[in-house]
Amino acid sequence: MAQKPSIPKGTRDFSPIEMARRNYIFDTIRNVFALSGFKQIETPAMETLSTLMGKYGEEGDKLLFKILDSGNYLSGIDCELLTAGEPCGKLTSQLCEKGLRYDLTVPFARYVVQHRADLQLPFKRFQIQPVWRADRPQKGRYREFYQCDADVVGSDSLLCEIELLSIIDEVFKRLGIRTVIKLNNRKILAGIAELIGAPDKIVDITVAIDKLDKIGIDNVNTELLERGLSEQSVKALQPILAIDGTTKERLLKLREVLASSETGIKGIEELETVINGAESFGVETQVELDVSLARGLNYYTGTIIEVKALDVQIGSITGGGRYDNLTGVFGMPGVSGVGISFGADRIYDVLNALNLYPETATAVTTVMFANFGHEEAMYSLSVIKKLRDAGISAEIYPDAVKMKKQMAYADTQKVPFVAIAGTEEMEAGTITLKNMIDGTQQNLSIAELINTLAIS
Amino acid sequence: MAQKPSIPKGTRDFSPIEMARRNYIFDTIRNVFALSGFKQIETPAMETLSTLMGKYGEEGDKLLFKILDSGNYLSGIDCELLTAGEPCGKLTSQLCEKGLRYDLTVPFARYVVQHRADLQLPFKRFQIQPVWRADRPQKGRYREFYQCDADVVGSDSLLCEIELLSIIDEVFKRLGIRTVIKLNNRKILAGIAELIGAPDKIVDITVAIDKLDKIGIDNVNTELLERGLSEQSVKALQPILAIDGTTKERLLKLREVLASSETGIKGIEELETVINGAESFGVETQVELDVSLARGLNYYTGTIIEVKALDVQIGSITGGGRYDNLTGVFGMPGVSGVGISFGADRIYDVLNALNLYPETATAVTTVMFANFGHEEAMYSLSVIKKLRDAGISAEIYPDAVKMKKQMAYADTQKVPFVAIAGTEEMEAGTITLKNMIDGTQQNLSIAELINTLAIS
Repeated sequence: MAQKPSIPKGTRDFSPIEMARRNYIFDTIRNVFALSGFKQIETPAMETLSTLMGKYGEEGDKLLFKILDSGNYLSGIDCELLTAGEPCGKLTSQLCEKGLRYDLTVPFARYVVQHRADLQLPFKRFQIQPVWRADRPQKGRYREFYQCDADVVGSDSLLCEIELLSIIDEVFKRLGIRTVIKLNNRKILAGIAELIGAPDKIVDITVAIDKLDKIGIDNVNTELLERGLSEQSVKALQPILAIDGTTKERLLKLREVLASSETGIKGIEELETVINGAESFGVETQVELDVSLARGLNYYTGTIIEVKALDVQIGSITGGGRYDNLTGVFGMPGVSGVGISFGADRIYDVLNALNLYPETATAVTTVMFANFGHEEAMYSLSVIKKLRDAGISAEIYPDAVKMKKQMAYADTQKVPFVAIAGTEEMEAGTITLKNMIDGTQQNLSIAELINTLAIS
Repeated sequence: MAQKPSIPKGTRDFSPIEMARRNYIFDTIRNVFALSGFKQIETPAMETLSTLMGKYGEEGDKLLFKILDSGNYLSGIDCELLTAGEPCGKLTSQLCEKGLRYDLTVPFARYVVQHRADLQLPFKRFQIQPVWRADRPQKGRYREFYQCDADVVGSDSLLCEIELLSIIDEVFKRLGIRTVIKLNNRKILAGIAELIGAPDKIVDITVAIDKLDKIGIDNVNTELLERGLSEQSVKALQPILAIDGTTKERLLKLREVLASSETGIKGIEELETVINGAESFGVETQVELDVSLARGLNYYTGTIIEVKALDVQIGSITGGGRYDNLTGVFGMPGVSGVGISFGADRIYDVLNALNLYPETATAVTTVMFANFGHEEAMYSLSVIKKLRDAGISAEIYPDAVKMKKQMAYADTQKVPFVAIAGTEEMEAGTITLKNMIDGTQQNLSIAELINTLAIS
């Protein structure tokens, strides 16, 4: 019975050329991670739901893909739950004990706690694996996508932040993507909120600062009042909203304004250390303060990092920050960490938009041998063996069909060379090599063939 | 609230050293695949259940991990199904429309059919991804494990089989594992069954042949009778059971015995072509006929391949065969294919048992800089930058804690060199390099440092 096959919405197949490009991205990131002393780990796709639930907020719990228990999963289930109008929450936890990981951070925290006896802190780990979210699929948002994370846990040294900035710098330099690294510090935001007497309004303040350029100071102030800030708070915020200039200038002015807030000053000092350290480390990417940066505000406790591409309109392509209690929820308090996550899918989109792939990021065989029949094929195999031993990818067309068809195949596969071995070549111990780009042909000894293809 | 975290049974975390070793295996296989003109694809972890169900037999259907639909998954469900005693089958298909892939073959067949318009046949694809099975976990059997598959579809040329044998040969040569490749052909088995007048007893015959060495001819014959073969059939089988000698000798004798079976002779000819072709191709691994080889008999239609390690007692570490109708179930008949699957987890076990990993398969940073405080750290960063630019992995201990602790850390991380940059070194623009293996120290200029570490 024929089915019209398809894949679940929000998921993707990757074709050979897409894989070559994705591998180029992953390999680049992996190499920079390793060069920087980070060690790779992998965790299972499935985690127990008790590991995942409650870590991503109520909305996150709903977006977890849950795995139905095997066997007779309804046995022992409360019948009332089955026939009640609102089945989801409680019933699900009885039907399912496993779920697909939602990110790499919670599995990493679980890993650290579970393997604490074998781990030497500080632990610098990286992890490149897919994650799954039952999000509404839309352009650029998938239900299965890769994350590429690097984290240092077990040290609160700002050298870790500096290290991560240098990784960002190096990865995007290698990929050829021009970026700006935006930095903020949770403590600066806390200092501002403290200063204006609205410690619970951090988010509203960052939203307002973010809109300043677009809607102007008057509209921002109106909005802040609407969001429940007192007139006094809004007034107190004005000197901060007025700050402009370069990052160094703004840090100087912020230091004056926040002078009375110990937390605020601490945040500024941390940021200065990170920015100056990155300079010492030779980071060439522009690093700038962005006080409106508030990503991950519910768990970041210090540095906040976001990377934007300069030449393509797209959301942030990398982000991260410092968290002070990653593993606390699993019973191991006091472990500080800082991490970044490269958004492989968006980076892929940026590279596509700018056509920045190197020539090596293709899935092309160097030479295809035409097939003239059994004897010729056996001769070709012996030559192919020598080519492969020399590191040259080579294959033979499997069927002795018409030459036109074989050449058409070589064309669609973008094979740059076709090798022809007929009776004459077999007798002479040679190969005729056709260059598929300029159409020229050469008769070559096997040694010459290897040399020619090794250089090309 | 502290939880004691763990992972679902049958799944694994991979530590840095395990990852280094696994990557060594995957990279080796990937490189040989690519060298041989195979192109990588990836498919989503989740497939629709309609793609997966009914492809692996009844037992396979039960072993599929099914994903609970999102949202209010009970709405519209037949209440009787919920409260009936036997809930599984029908209800599951209403609760779940997706499942985790069980192997790479069915998703590949689905891929070929779905993308048929964009694909040029023959299509040589490889795929290295995890699969999931709700099997009972036991030693060496996991619920999440990797498969490494290479298949050629769209050609019935035996050159494809020869190509796959050369890939097997090359992969295990590179890994340093001594193996034997066992071959059979479905058509030989069909010929035998036809000859003895028991065409539906292929499996019983192979089981009997397999036991010949262990239990002797008399017991085998008794068992065949018990399995429902007629006395006449058992008698007719005796000349076949009596065949021995080398592979070439056995093929000659089989050819005589099976002379009257067109199918049987076809199978012998195919096998001879494959074995001789492998020889022309320079395959050095021992290739032998094993008429008891019956893996995948429900879908293989020609060549059957199995690889055993010679120096470790373990099941087959690679297997494969030819199938004539991979995509028929998805409405695209007549596409012949042949493929192999490397069992990465068993190969991992073999490499561990024989301790065959190269020195490069570790997760070690070349040099760790000790941390003496902020200024020294900034100096170290500038040196680390130069080392990394030269391709040398380097890092700095993030905290300026006691030297003893830093050295102990370097020890546990098996870092071969520790770099020391104190006031003296900063003034002189040098580094003191300590060799952690022999304990020697050298004061080096930065250029000397790079040279020393690049060679090591």
